[in-house]
Amino acid sequence: MERARVAIVGASGYTGAELVRLLLSHPRADLTALVAKERVTPKASTVLPSLAGVLDLPIEAFDADKIAAKCDVAFCALPHGASIEAVRALHGRGVRVFDLSADFRLSDPATYAEWYGAEHAAKDLLPHAVYGLCEENREALRGATLVAVPGCYPTASALPLLPLVHEGLVKHDEPVVIHALSGVSGAGRTPTAGTHFTETSEGIRAYKIAGTHRHTPEIEQTLSRAAGRDLRVTFTPTLVPMSRGILATSYVTPTNEVTVDALIECARAFFAGSPSVVVLDKGQLPDTLWVRGSNRAHVAYALDARANKIVAMGTIDNLVKGASGQAIQCMNIALGWDEGLGLRAPAMWP
Amino acid sequence: MERARVAIVGASGYTGAELVRLLLSHPRADLTALVAKERVTPKASTVLPSLAGVLDLPIEAFDADKIAAKCDVAFCALPHGASIEAVRALHGRGVRVFDLSADFRLSDPATYAEWYGAEHAAKDLLPHAVYGLCEENREALRGATLVAVPGCYPTASALPLLPLVHEGLVKHDEPVVIHALSGVSGAGRTPTAGTHFTETSEGIRAYKIAGTHRHTPEIEQTLSRAAGRDLRVTFTPTLVPMSRGILATSYVTPTNEVTVDALIECARAFFAGSPSVVVLDKGQLPDTLWVRGSNRAHVAYALDARANKIVAMGTIDNLVKGASGQAIQCMNIALGWDEGLGLRAPAMWP
Amino acid sequence: MERARVAIVGASGYTGAELVRLLLSHPRADLTALVAKERVTPKASTVLPSLAGVLDLPIEAFDADKIAAKCDVAFCALPHGASIEAVRALHGRGVRVFDLSADFRLSDPATYAEWYGAEHAAKDLLPHAVYGLCEENREALRGATLVAVPGCYPTASALPLLPLVHEGLVKHDEPVVIHALSGVSGAGRTPTAGTHFTETSEGIRAYKIAGTHRHTPEIEQTLSRAAGRDLRVTFTPTLVPMSRGILATSYVTPTNEVTVDALIECARAFFAGSPSVVVLDKGQLPDTLWVRGSNRAHVAYALDARANKIVAMGTIDNLVKGASGQAIQCMNIALGWDEGLGLRAPAMWP
Amino acid sequence: MERARVAIVGASGYTGAELVRLLLSHPRADLTALVAKERVTPKASTVLPSLAGVLDLPIEAFDADKIAAKCDVAFCALPHGASIEAVRALHGRGVRVFDLSADFRLSDPATYAEWYGAEHAAKDLLPHAVYGLCEENREALRGATLVAVPGCYPTASALPLLPLVHEGLVKHDEPVVIHALSGVSGAGRTPTAGTHFTETSEGIRAYKIAGTHRHTPEIEQTLSRAAGRDLRVTFTPTLVPMSRGILATSYVTPTNEVTVDALIECARAFFAGSPSVVVLDKGQLPDTLWVRGSNRAHVAYALDARANKIVAMGTIDNLVKGASGQAIQCMNIALGWDEGLGLRAPAMWP
Repeated sequence: MERARVAIVGASGYTGAELVRLLLSHPRADLTALVAKERVTPKASTVLPSLAGVLDLPIEAFDADKIAAKCDVAFCALPHGASIEAVRALHGRGVRVFDLSADFRLSDPATYAEWYGAEHAAKDLLPHAVYGLCEENREALRGATLVAVPGCYPTASALPLLPLVHEGLVKHDEPVVIHALSGVSGAGRTPTAGTHFTETSEGIRAYKIAGTHRHTPEIEQTLSRAAGRDLRVTFTPTLVPMSRGILATSYVTPTNEVTVDALIECARAFFAGSPSVVVLDKGQLPDTLWVRGSNRAHVAYALDARANKIVAMGTIDNLVKGASGQAIQCMNIALGWDEGLGLRAPAMWP
Repeated sequence: MERARVAIVGASGYTGAELVRLLLSHPRADLTALVAKERVTPKASTVLPSLAGVLDLPIEAFDADKIAAKCDVAFCALPHGASIEAVRALHGRGVRVFDLSADFRLSDPATYAEWYGAEHAAKDLLPHAVYGLCEENREALRGATLVAVPGCYPTASALPLLPLVHEGLVKHDEPVVIHALSGVSGAGRTPTAGTHFTETSEGIRAYKIAGTHRHTPEIEQTLSRAAGRDLRVTFTPTLVPMSRGILATSYVTPTNEVTVDALIECARAFFAGSPSVVVLDKGQLPDTLWVRGSNRAHVAYALDARANKIVAMGTIDNLVKGASGQAIQCMNIALGWDEGLGLRAPAMWP
Repeated sequence: MERARVAIVGASGYTGAELVRLLLSHPRADLTALVAKERVTPKASTVLPSLAGVLDLPIEAFDADKIAAKCDVAFCALPHGASIEAVRALHGRGVRVFDLSADFRLSDPATYAEWYGAEHAAKDLLPHAVYGLCEENREALRGATLVAVPGCYPTASALPLLPLVHEGLVKHDEPVVIHALSGVSGAGRTPTAGTHFTETSEGIRAYKIAGTHRHTPEIEQTLSRAAGRDLRVTFTPTLVPMSRGILATSYVTPTNEVTVDALIECARAFFAGSPSVVVLDKGQLPDTLWVRGSNRAHVAYALDARANKIVAMGTIDNLVKGASGQAIQCMNIALGWDEGLGLRAPAMWP
Repeated sequence: MERARVAIVGASGYTGAELVRLLLSHPRADLTALVAKERVTPKASTVLPSLAGVLDLPIEAFDADKIAAKCDVAFCALPHGASIEAVRALHGRGVRVFDLSADFRLSDPATYAEWYGAEHAAKDLLPHAVYGLCEENREALRGATLVAVPGCYPTASALPLLPLVHEGLVKHDEPVVIHALSGVSGAGRTPTAGTHFTETSEGIRAYKIAGTHRHTPEIEQTLSRAAGRDLRVTFTPTLVPMSRGILATSYVTPTNEVTVDALIECARAFFAGSPSVVVLDKGQLPDTLWVRGSNRAHVAYALDARANKIVAMGTIDNLVKGASGQAIQCMNIALGWDEGLGLRAPAMWP
């Protein structure tokens, strides 16, 4: 495909708006339809004022036939559960679908049922869905017609661990401790007490800890596949007073004596050819500000010899490499395009 | 010129880094040299980590011959005073120079001496310098070889006022009250007590008020030229706890009875064909978040009939339309290119 | 009265919680009842976790007889409209009432009707209500049984202007331009799109400008009384990304030639004996951070000789001197106690 | 002692200013001297504007004789290294000293030398110094004349772990993983690149991780004493964009099957009679905003049955319970006063 006509379903939320921003700079994508459930409007800039003078499209209600007729590719940025129906309708009409919800991320419907409290409503589609962690699943993504774009926490958490797990550098018989910090945009555009400015500024708090956050099984699935055996994770998501960015820190025990240099070398080999991942130099520690607005992940390693622990860190912009940017990266791979197309912009700093 | 080779002098500060970010997306500009006084390094990403994996240039010390040989266009993002020498050296070697400092903004050297406390060190160059407020000076910018890129406050303040002043809609015999709020990045990359996180967060304070801030004569120069007579401004810059963005609010008295619709119509006529300015609809008020990271200015008008005052508002990202973006817009015009080239990206929201 | 038993009606919102915090340090006040409409609970710390281990009171539903039996003094921190009924019920049962709502601030019911869009429901009580701007109305407050605690913007705006207006130093025949910035806590505890963290951080926006904000007539009432003639105000409230603090800047024209020293001297004379107001030294400009959490107002003056404008600034913590702290100051005066009792703590800095 | 005359050495930094704020509300302490190295001034409010109209003391240069003559108690809030000399001079003159630096926290001078890169300059005084973690060392603090006030991170980290360690509920043969987040005020009042607003806002980054932060041996010392055997810690301090607050999360493995209820019960028994610690209810997770400005620690527990990990959390205001408040708590105990005297104020919320 030379160019792709693109629809965004769920265009008025944060990941939807971010898809618009990123796709406007994509040299081979043409935005042809914006779809939303609420906030339907003849002029997208009414609900997304940053688009005034930039993009002149309406936001329309979902109509599978109408949308399918206008696009080759659809990004679905709907809440989990709500996504399945739209995905099925578009995929069934021959549209390539990149789904940003959690609905197609867990390949085992039993695990889905356990964590989401409901039977999976599209078990027949699950085998067609490719998990879109690009650096891990690049080959499977080529030609894919249905892609489950990974969660933000799982992306930031898994990337630094994957090279070590593949290489057998870490013990698999003890749980991985993952402490992850996130900006508030991960919670979406709907105001709640927990995202009210006055209760977020100067406040940090963990939530859904100790095996209760739904990204836990997603991280475990990714690491377990790489390890070739079941791996357990204890995961602590924490909200911090900023808009964008995730910093995930993992604690694992080395199988054998190892050096930081060896960890970095292992990761650099793994991420060779990956335009979106930078392995920092020894001694450098990542900062969310260095990746904000970009599709880049910065990963770094340290070794605590006194405590015999590897500390592995990954940072991303949760709305870009953690959502909309990675979705576009998946599209690029699926369509056989250069993986970094339209995604090369550096972070907005400061 | 089909393409331009571009050097950035003063590349390691905030406006320099922002020039890098914006030029990397510019379809006809090739970054060929980064220059800095401090922070010289073989790998720019050492001091600008957001460039890791994105740009592989050194930051070199200033050497006029070497730099001039490598570029057609230079952006000078140096502090005022320090800029003059670099501008002269490059301009004298046939390089088109876009200067982001204050050194060439005031056309009258006496005014410069009065406000900057020193004789102007390049009076011979002053007549060649075009003031780069694109929407006002577009014609003068075509073919310009030396451009004084306007200050951030003057851009945000003058844009909403200019249509009204040109049209004679406001009284010129009383001072314009301008109250402007700015994010902290306007203060630059060097840490000071006033920009220390703990003393900036939860703190708002005005500074250099009541006719002491050096942007005052720059705003007066712009408005006076448009009015065809001397106009006075009282200007209150205020620091607010955020990184980017300026919101300037001006209070003027209408000459005759006027409506908000008429003000908006006047502004829309003035800015017709200006890709960087959006005149908001009646009732809409601008928000810095809607323009953050973009080269767009949002302007808006209200009328206080009880007090007989026009309230005119302008908002920009101080590092983009208030500095680096406008500098590129100037280059586009000077080189005869499309004015919005490389500057169409919408704001990063949220 | 040696000690006062105190009830807080509307205890679970921000001004209610702030009353609790401040009264816990008051040496002559005993908190006896917390009342709320929503968030009724046997243990206040359930909804105000900062009180865990500090205060062991329930939050109860409003019952006039029960509450009146338990208290000598009641603070009503309810939304306007909702307040009137509670005020009447308690005041009628002999309780001294300090009302933080807007309901009793405007002495002319016609003005109330014009700005609040409804007839005033307690016109009979209006003549009994004393406007609680302590530094202006101290004498009237002594012994008062019903006090209308001023709004946050009117307090910050009027304090620096009052000395000048009383002294006839400013022209009364042109509108006063007041540009005021506020932290987000002024918008209350209920989450909305406009106070959602991600749309507030890095965003500044004005709202209800040009004679549409309901604090406009309140400011005009205060200044007009002091001037002895009608004064007009154009008022621009602006939301900035911080939790607490107001900085109000006013622009007025001097009647005669005047100096900053004279302005400061005039203000110091006016505020002599006022423990809550500090007139800053010449050249100092106020910072919201210096008053955060305290009941202090910092006021400052500058003179723009070029534009012939006096710039008068006032800063307060909107929840303390702008609400709960001033309410307690009113109580102290009404009960004949030392005005600064329980209110001497300096700002929490940083 | 009925009342204490109190000097603050190092009064112009953040912990010094916080001591002033807290002591002004202390019913039995009289501030008699403020001392600083830089920022000596006849009027403290010149460098601490929050004190204008509140406190009328100079900030004087250090003179041991003069200071010792004016006070019974001195708080030393100086950087480590600089502290030792002042402590020796005052302690030798019969003043009770509460030292907020790290100089007297590690009882083994060899450990000090290893982590601070210098021989301890007052080994003779070390045996007299009591480690001031009040809830753990209350008995030793009674009558103490030299107290080492604990670090902020060690306080937040150790408090939730101590009950479990004392009770033998956690495995001691594997390292404790502690991930701690801190507001920026912990870095002090001197501006640096890392605390510049624009590089802190929207940025989170870990620093001195993997056994390199000097609070590591302090935490190990506290836990090892309680365990009766050597315990290892891997510690990850992380800077987040806010001014005050620490949230420390620890991961430990239970020795036997245990329930959250049992963990909470154990902690409530341990902290019975401790006015500064609140053990949250099951399911509640701490928020730094609930303790900001107060001397309270909130601790909470969760159990990840899938990963067999106890997650123990503690949150404090780093400048209060993590520094100045705990110092006053130490004084209260040392002087035989009520432990919570002057420290009962709840958090400033929001």
